Amino acid sequence: MEEITELFVEVNVEVKFSEVDALQIVWHGHYIRYFEDAREAFGKQYGIGYLDIYEHGFTIPIVQVSCNYKAALKYGDTAVVRCTYVKTLPAKIIFAFTIKKPGSDTIIAEGSTVQVFLDDKGILQLYSPEFYDKWKIKMNLA
Amino acid sequence: MEEITELFVEVNVEVKFSEVDALQIVWHGHYIRYFEDAREAFGKQYGIGYLDIYEHGFTIPIVQVSCNYKAALKYGDTAVVRCTYVKTLPAKIIFAFTIKKPGSDTIIAEGSTVQVFLDDKGILQLYSPEFYDKWKIKMNLA
Amino acid sequence: MEEITELFVEVNVEVKFSEVDALQIVWHGHYIRYFEDAREAFGKQYGIGYLDIYEHGFTIPIVQVSCNYKAALKYGDTAVVRCTYVKTLPAKIIFAFTIKKPGSDTIIAEGSTVQVFLDDKGILQLYSPEFYDKWKIKMNLA
Amino acid sequence: MEEITELFVEVNVEVKFSEVDALQIVWHGHYIRYFEDAREAFGKQYGIGYLDIYEHGFTIPIVQVSCNYKAALKYGDTAVVRCTYVKTLPAKIIFAFTIKKPGSDTIIAEGSTVQVFLDDKGILQLYSPEFYDKWKIKMNLA
Repeated sequence: MEEITELFVEVNVEVKFSEVDALQIVWHGHYIRYFEDAREAFGKQYGIGYLDIYEHGFTIPIVQVSCNYKAALKYGDTAVVRCTYVKTLPAKIIFAFTIKKPGSDTIIAEGSTVQVFLDDKGILQLYSPEFYDKWKIKMNLA
Repeated sequence: MEEITELFVEVNVEVKFSEVDALQIVWHGHYIRYFEDAREAFGKQYGIGYLDIYEHGFTIPIVQVSCNYKAALKYGDTAVVRCTYVKTLPAKIIFAFTIKKPGSDTIIAEGSTVQVFLDDKGILQLYSPEFYDKWKIKMNLA
Repeated sequence: MEEITELFVEVNVEVKFSEVDALQIVWHGHYIRYFEDAREAFGKQYGIGYLDIYEHGFTIPIVQVSCNYKAALKYGDTAVVRCTYVKTLPAKIIFAFTIKKPGSDTIIAEGSTVQVFLDDKGILQLYSPEFYDKWKIKMNLA
Repeated sequence: MEEITELFVEVNVEVKFSEVDALQIVWHGHYIRYFEDAREAFGKQYGIGYLDIYEHGFTIPIVQVSCNYKAALKYGDTAVVRCTYVKTLPAKIIFAFTIKKPGSDTIIAEGSTVQVFLDDKGILQLYSPEFYDKWKIKMNLA
């Protein structure tokens, strides 16, 4: 059972020349980096970034990524990437993403990522690490 | 209704130093390029590549991509990326992908892409272009 | 004869997880993109961006790039990339780049790029296009 | 004093769709990866790859890269990247690169990379590590 929350960050992404392909639009694979930019900003803002998690002895590799493309971004465009925390019971971190242009409600792309916890031996954690449960309580997400 | 077919290509991908991240594994976003490598090889082998399609006056942007990661690739690994044609009725091109190590049946990652047809004015095609229907007949996919 | 000028822009670059390699430092090839980020910001700020130039019927491909690496950037670091205009007589656009950490004088990397003018038929221009001469006069660079 | 040698490898690179920019040519930054592909192939073939060196307790970060672009590569092109060992007295590894099309003598791009030795504490080595001197003798490069 997954439930979208009110917890999100937004980052602005400026389309770089090197990101545009021969069709004059952003190559679809770069959206995965845009998602990562927003996910990292979320981690920084709410104290749940890669380095925070690494200090607790865990890594959180991506196990699933998906993206739906509704419209295209061109060279020179600015995009607003929103990364929203999605509640779930299993020992996973799920984020939902939307990409829009500034001041627009039209969705250019939307997607999601799922991450799991590995301990410092690389063993998959079936239960959420304690620090993560505490973080969820602190954020009113539990 | 989608139906996996017997039509596929396989390409070998060698993990490059620049593709490995701080966790010593291939950064998840690079799998999207691996998929593209295999998809392009499919297009070349079966006469349905970007340039073939462009000659008919169409482009085929990606509208959906997804990937599930089951295991990791490390620097120096070789991976076999299989791109399999998936039959579908709508005016779309769907491919399924698996990534394995040579001689292994263990799936490292699997995913899919969906592409649509735009004409030379950028208009979405609700019906498959004629050249594509002909291609499907020629390939016994219709 | 090349002469460094006082005309520059600075952009902040945050090191992304996907940019760090197995040595835990930014992969050297990404600095080329950092240079491009700063060069594009320069173009935007001073009205000499790709799109401005394209409107005048020219493209400005890179014909030379070089980078010297003095120190490393790590995940989470912020870098200040400075792009400085370099005066030269031939029909070229030359920029010099330095990368430092905010508030530091230590050079992490420095480099340069050289661009030439092609007209809309792809012909190399031996003399600077008129619009570029005018731009240089306007910027007191002539 | 640097001296080009007869020791080289060549790799074939196929231009990918994602590598082509809005000008329909390979984005200049990707040539740095092409160089790396050839450099890694050299390391593999002659037993001087990253992993070989790492086993001896050293890393070999890039401290200098340069590239001159003479012509362009387009989507669908195949390029032959040659990585040639360059003899030098200091504790450095220098490679020269050329990129040509198969069966052509026209140089599309040429460049070089310089690497230094760091020990496992990250200290720059002023003298070549012993294993490297032995390797040079074995390869008749000393």
